[in-house]
Amino acid sequence: MTIQHLPPKKITSFYPPQRTLMGPGPSEIAPRVLAAMSLPCIGYLDPVFVDMMDELKMLLRYAFQTDNALTFPASGPGSVGMEMCFVNMVDPGDKVIICRNGVFGGRMIENVLRCGGIPVIIEDTWGEPVDPQKLEDTLKQHPDTKVVAFVHAETSTGCMSDAKTLVEIAHRHGALTIVDAVTQLGGAPLFVDEWNIDAIYSGSQKCLSCTPGLSPVSFSQRIIDRIKSRQKPSQSWFMDLDLVLGYWGTTSRTYHHTAPINGLFALHESLVLLREEGLENAWARHTRHYLALKAGLEAMGLSYLVKEEYRLPQLNAVRVPDGVDEARVRKTLLTEFNLEIGAGLGPLAGKIWRFGLMGYSAKSENVMLCLSALGSVLMDMGYPIKVGIAEAAAHQAYAEQHAQAAKNIKQVS
Amino acid sequence: MTIQHLPPKKITSFYPPQRTLMGPGPSEIAPRVLAAMSLPCIGYLDPVFVDMMDELKMLLRYAFQTDNALTFPASGPGSVGMEMCFVNMVDPGDKVIICRNGVFGGRMIENVLRCGGIPVIIEDTWGEPVDPQKLEDTLKQHPDTKVVAFVHAETSTGCMSDAKTLVEIAHRHGALTIVDAVTQLGGAPLFVDEWNIDAIYSGSQKCLSCTPGLSPVSFSQRIIDRIKSRQKPSQSWFMDLDLVLGYWGTTSRTYHHTAPINGLFALHESLVLLREEGLENAWARHTRHYLALKAGLEAMGLSYLVKEEYRLPQLNAVRVPDGVDEARVRKTLLTEFNLEIGAGLGPLAGKIWRFGLMGYSAKSENVMLCLSALGSVLMDMGYPIKVGIAEAAAHQAYAEQHAQAAKNIKQVS
Repeated sequence: MTIQHLPPKKITSFYPPQRTLMGPGPSEIAPRVLAAMSLPCIGYLDPVFVDMMDELKMLLRYAFQTDNALTFPASGPGSVGMEMCFVNMVDPGDKVIICRNGVFGGRMIENVLRCGGIPVIIEDTWGEPVDPQKLEDTLKQHPDTKVVAFVHAETSTGCMSDAKTLVEIAHRHGALTIVDAVTQLGGAPLFVDEWNIDAIYSGSQKCLSCTPGLSPVSFSQRIIDRIKSRQKPSQSWFMDLDLVLGYWGTTSRTYHHTAPINGLFALHESLVLLREEGLENAWARHTRHYLALKAGLEAMGLSYLVKEEYRLPQLNAVRVPDGVDEARVRKTLLTEFNLEIGAGLGPLAGKIWRFGLMGYSAKSENVMLCLSALGSVLMDMGYPIKVGIAEAAAHQAYAEQHAQAAKNIKQVS
Repeated sequence: MTIQHLPPKKITSFYPPQRTLMGPGPSEIAPRVLAAMSLPCIGYLDPVFVDMMDELKMLLRYAFQTDNALTFPASGPGSVGMEMCFVNMVDPGDKVIICRNGVFGGRMIENVLRCGGIPVIIEDTWGEPVDPQKLEDTLKQHPDTKVVAFVHAETSTGCMSDAKTLVEIAHRHGALTIVDAVTQLGGAPLFVDEWNIDAIYSGSQKCLSCTPGLSPVSFSQRIIDRIKSRQKPSQSWFMDLDLVLGYWGTTSRTYHHTAPINGLFALHESLVLLREEGLENAWARHTRHYLALKAGLEAMGLSYLVKEEYRLPQLNAVRVPDGVDEARVRKTLLTEFNLEIGAGLGPLAGKIWRFGLMGYSAKSENVMLCLSALGSVLMDMGYPIKVGIAEAAAHQAYAEQHAQAAKNIKQVS
C-alpha cells in the first residue's frame, strides 16, 4: 500500500500572533504558566507527579474556598465539568430546576434532557440576575425537585447572580445544587463551603489565566455519598466520578485515563501565582481594572448592559451604540491592534460587546490599549468622541483608587 | 467573609525531573512540540486559529491515511475519543460485538452498557490477536449486530490484530466498525480508507509524541449520515458529533466548547514533524529500534509475551523472569536512572513489563540506556547476565539493519 493524502507543502510550523486577549476567554497566559507547560512530560503514575496532584488539589481548594476532598481538575474544557455534574447527579425521571439568564443556562437544560431528567426552567432576562423569588415559587410548585442548577457568573451577559441565596433556597426545599463558576473562579468572591454549594465547576482559561482545556471541579461529601450509593452507574464512562475518584481520590491512584500532564503543570503554576498574589488581592485587582475600564467607556458615552450591583468586574458587557457596525469594530481591533474583544451571543448578538478583564489580562496596559484603540476606531467610523477623554477618565479612576488605598493603609496604621 | 483553606507554604513552582519515558505512554515530547505548547494563546475563533485548525485536519488525514472530512482532534484523552464513537453510534438496544483481548476491549464493553447497548463479547487470550474466525462465527449467530469494535494495537499486551480483515468481515455482515488506534497511529501501518474503517480514535501522547490530552478521531461519511438522520440526540452533549461538526466541520465555525488552544499548537507541530519525517519512515524507525531492543532483551535471556508476527514494535511486552521482584526493578530504574517502563495490567500484572518505543522515545539512546540499566539492575538482584551482552546484541542489530539499508539503496540505484 502506498502513502496518500499528503498535506500541502505550505503547511509548516505554526506561529500565532501575539494578541491582547480581552474577550470572554481564553485570557492571556502568564509567562511563568507558559513556561510550565513546556516542561518535559512525565508519567501519570510517577510518584513525583502524584505528589504534584496532591498539591494541585490543595491549591484548588484554596481557589474554591472549600475543604471538599473531591476537588480536582477534570481533563477537559468547562463543558466537561458541567456534564460531569449532571451525569453524576441526575437520574432518568429526576426533576431539575434550571435558572436560565444566558447561554450557559441553556446548555444546562440540554444536559438535563440528555440524562433523561425533567427540566423545569426559570427564565430571567439576559443581563439580569436569577430572581431568588422565582426560585422559591418554583420549588413550592415542584417540591419533588432533586437538583437546582444556575450560572453564578454568566459569561454571555456579564451578570452575577446571588449564589449564596439561591443555594440556601434550594437546600431549604431539599434540592442539591450545581453551580457554574467558569468565569467566577479567581476573579470575584466565591466561597464554596460558606455558601454550601454541592457541586461546582469552572474553567482554566478565564480568571486563572491558564491554558484552555481543564475544568476545576469540586463536590461535597453529599455528592460522594450519592455516587457511592447509586444503583446504576453514570451514563458516561469518562465522566463517572466513581471511577475518577480512583485516580484523583484520597486513598489510591488507579489508572483511569491519561491525565493531560503538561496542562496540569500549567494549572499548578497558575494556582501558585494565585496563592502568591492572594485570592482577595486577585479579586481586588479585577475590580480595580474594571473601574478604570468603566470610567473610560462611560466617558466615551458607552453604557453597560448590566446594572452596576450585578456586574461582573471580569466580564464587561457594553451596549453597541446605534448605527455602529459592531463586527467591523471587532475586526479592526483584531487586525490593526491585535486586540481581541468578544461579540454578543444569542439575543444579544450585534447588540453588545464583551470586554474581558480576566486573570493575566486584567492589567492597566490592557485597559489603556482597549480604550485608545476602541476610541480611535469609533472615531474613524464617525462616532463622536473627544480625543483622549476615555484614557483620561481611566487614569483618573486609577488615581482615585490609589489615593483611597493609601488612605485605608493610613487608617489601619 | 475571611479567606481560609490556605495551602501549605511549601507548595511552590513544580519542576519535573527529566525522565526517559519508555512506558506505555506518555512518550517523550519532541523539543519543537514543547516549544509550540508555550506559544501565546489566541482566541478559538481567531481567523488565524481557524486556518490552523484546517491545517490540523489535513495533517491528521495524512496520519490516518484518509480523506474523511470529519477528522479532527477531540478535546480530551483517548477515552473521550472512545466514548465519542460509542455515544454517537450505539442506540439503546443495539447489539454490539466487542472483541476483547486486553484492558481496552473491557473498557469498550463498559461504553456499550452505558449507552444501553447489548454487548456480545468475543474473548481472546491477552497477548494474542483477535481471532477473525470467531468474529465470523459470532456475526452469523448475531446477524442483527449493528457495530463491531476492537482494539487494533492493544497497549496492555503489545499485540496487533488484523484490522483490515476484521473490518471486512464486519462489513460483509452489515455492521459498522469502531477501531481503537491509540497506540497504533504514527507507529505502525494504518490505512483508514483502504481498510474501510468507519470510526477510529487515537491519542496524542503515544507515537505522535505530543502532550497527553487530545484524541485524534476520524469518521466516515456513513457515520455522518447516521448522525444527521438520527431521531434522538447523543446522550452526551460534549461528545455529540452533530454539535462538534459545527465547530470542526467544513462549512462553519460555531462555538461549541473552548478548544485546548495550546495543546492544539503542540499537536500541529508534532504532525508537521511526522510529515517532515514521512509516515513510512516513522513506521520504519519504530521497527528499527524495536529490533535492536529485542536483540538486547533476548540476549539477556528475556522473552516476549506476544508471538513475533503479532508484535507491536512500539509496545514491547516482556515476561518477568521467575523470582524477580518486578516492581522493585521498575522502581530502581525510575529512581536510579530516571527511566520509566510500564507494568502489566489485569491478569498480566506482575507477569510482564511493558517497554514503549513510541514517537520521540523511539531512538537508539533510549534503547541502549534501557538495556544497560535493566541489565545492571537485574544483575544486582542476582539474575545471571553477562556484562555488555545485551548492548552488544542491540548494537549488532543496528549494524545489520544499516548494512541491509545500504544494500537496498544500492539495488535501487
